[in-house]
Amino acid sequence: MDPSLVKTPPLRDLTIDNITENVILINSLCEDARMKYVLERLVTHLHDFARETRLSFDEWMAGIKFLTETGQICTDVRQEFILLSDVLGLSLLVDSIDHPKPPNSTEGTVLGPFHTHEAPQMSHGDSMSQDTNGEPLLVVCNIKDRSGTPISGVKIDIWETDSTGHYDVQHADRTGPDGRCVMLSDDKGEFWFKAIKPVPYPIPHDGPVGKLLKRLHRHPFRPSHMHFMFEKDGYDHLITSLYLRNDPYEMSDAVFGVKNTLVVDLGTVDAELADKYGVAEGTLLMTYDFVLVTDAETKALREHNSQVALDKLGRKVKIVNGLPIPDLD
Amino acid sequence: MDPSLVKTPPLRDLTIDNITENVILINSLCEDARMKYVLERLVTHLHDFARETRLSFDEWMAGIKFLTETGQICTDVRQEFILLSDVLGLSLLVDSIDHPKPPNSTEGTVLGPFHTHEAPQMSHGDSMSQDTNGEPLLVVCNIKDRSGTPISGVKIDIWETDSTGHYDVQHADRTGPDGRCVMLSDDKGEFWFKAIKPVPYPIPHDGPVGKLLKRLHRHPFRPSHMHFMFEKDGYDHLITSLYLRNDPYEMSDAVFGVKNTLVVDLGTVDAELADKYGVAEGTLLMTYDFVLVTDAETKALREHNSQVALDKLGRKVKIVNGLPIPDLD
Repeated sequence: MDPSLVKTPPLRDLTIDNITENVILINSLCEDARMKYVLERLVTHLHDFARETRLSFDEWMAGIKFLTETGQICTDVRQEFILLSDVLGLSLLVDSIDHPKPPNSTEGTVLGPFHTHEAPQMSHGDSMSQDTNGEPLLVVCNIKDRSGTPISGVKIDIWETDSTGHYDVQHADRTGPDGRCVMLSDDKGEFWFKAIKPVPYPIPHDGPVGKLLKRLHRHPFRPSHMHFMFEKDGYDHLITSLYLRNDPYEMSDAVFGVKNTLVVDLGTVDAELADKYGVAEGTLLMTYDFVLVTDAETKALREHNSQVALDKLGRKVKIVNGLPIPDLD
Repeated sequence: MDPSLVKTPPLRDLTIDNITENVILINSLCEDARMKYVLERLVTHLHDFARETRLSFDEWMAGIKFLTETGQICTDVRQEFILLSDVLGLSLLVDSIDHPKPPNSTEGTVLGPFHTHEAPQMSHGDSMSQDTNGEPLLVVCNIKDRSGTPISGVKIDIWETDSTGHYDVQHADRTGPDGRCVMLSDDKGEFWFKAIKPVPYPIPHDGPVGKLLKRLHRHPFRPSHMHFMFEKDGYDHLITSLYLRNDPYEMSDAVFGVKNTLVVDLGTVDAELADKYGVAEGTLLMTYDFVLVTDAETKALREHNSQVALDKLGRKVKIVNGLPIPDLD
């Protein structure tokens, strides 16, 4: 770009006190109002962080190195920046903002870094785990809308670790997907499958995020859980998990994902269910009634919440494409 | 760690409104008071950023991908996170905080990502550039303290691009360092060397940072400059640059580094200087009087500035090891 076209005041002699307004000014050449707002808040908070801590050059360099190592350890099957976001509580926060839940609907929680797009499609009753060391578990669930009407044809992604607490992608010698599947809810909104009892496990802690947790004296464990993701046109995308009650880490999840309404008690399969689902009597049983919310309900609630929250913060905004931007009128 | 040892309240049912205090609470197990303070401010700003923008999941994921790509493009000779910090004004800000300058001393500026530790030691009068296409430049400088006393034995790192605007490390086929050297000031605090006239150049813009600048309609250019770094026991480490006056990018440096006191006019070598320094009469000449500040002066000024700035922000802090931490007494 021809520098003579830059419509900003001379950027020279920038100081602790005027650098922020000038960076915001030059970034405001961007004509995407939402991006401009996000960048403005990002630069403001980044600079205020440095000013409030009086960040030293050595600390800044330690941060540069930490972020570089975090990026460099990422692979197709490892996402250390999501882990970082998880342990800093950002992931839970963003899910809460983006997918607000009205009363009597299933709450969401963190996605985590282990969802993949290679899970095999399975039929009801199939076994999603090839791990013979796991404790067999029958999972029987249904999906309804808030008025209690079953929702059929929902695409459900399900994933869990093996009995050693590792996802398939964490095994260097894996030959294909395991402990994950995709299925569709049937005409009654039901879906059921065989799995293994979830176990607690540490998030990967041999990298930068693990080192950070160690310096903070935080343990890296997540309580036993199974991930679920629900997708159907017209319904808000639901990312959630079910947690087992009385897990040793139930109250100290390293990634802050546990919600009371998502904690379940396992039962056991009685003779009737054993016959119906073709499993041994006494097999562990997990059941849950998921309640999805429509896209329209979620959008309205999200916009309402945004407006209320930003009013409270004293920021004058308008909602465009579902997201707030400054209202300059 | 045994979860029963975790002395925090139950971390469950975390929401938009209580996630921040709980993340700070569990991070407070860290016994390093400074790290705890830095993390507390980091988490607060990160969360406030998400709350004020009502950050969407898709935007969060775009951020995760951006940071991952930024980390992955880094190599031994490319530091994209420093570039990112530079274009967001954070580098200039941190240098200003960490290396405050009293009146009548040389101002600092951004380090940039191209300093290396492989520059050859050179003697006064040596040529630091092997680029025969560059316009020859004689550089004659001296180093004094604030009372005007010459400082000998200062280690000076100097680096600049070649005439095409690239640092040595940006050439895939390079055979060794070029356009950089290390020398020591002599008994009179002087140092001089042959170089080439600096040229304006774009920061690397084929990666994530370049894409960001493009979306913001910002050009990637830095005005013509030469980097200097000064080190001597007892003196504050000075990272600075000299900029050529009337450069087309003098007022719009992509990384906000230009300071009025660091802008120089080039002269030409007269007969006397030509004879003294063994260069042709009429050769371009750059001169500068650098003024270093003692460690003690800088430390006192930094601590004073920290206290004043944080008082103004209403934060009660005490200075420990030169850096603020909350004063809880």
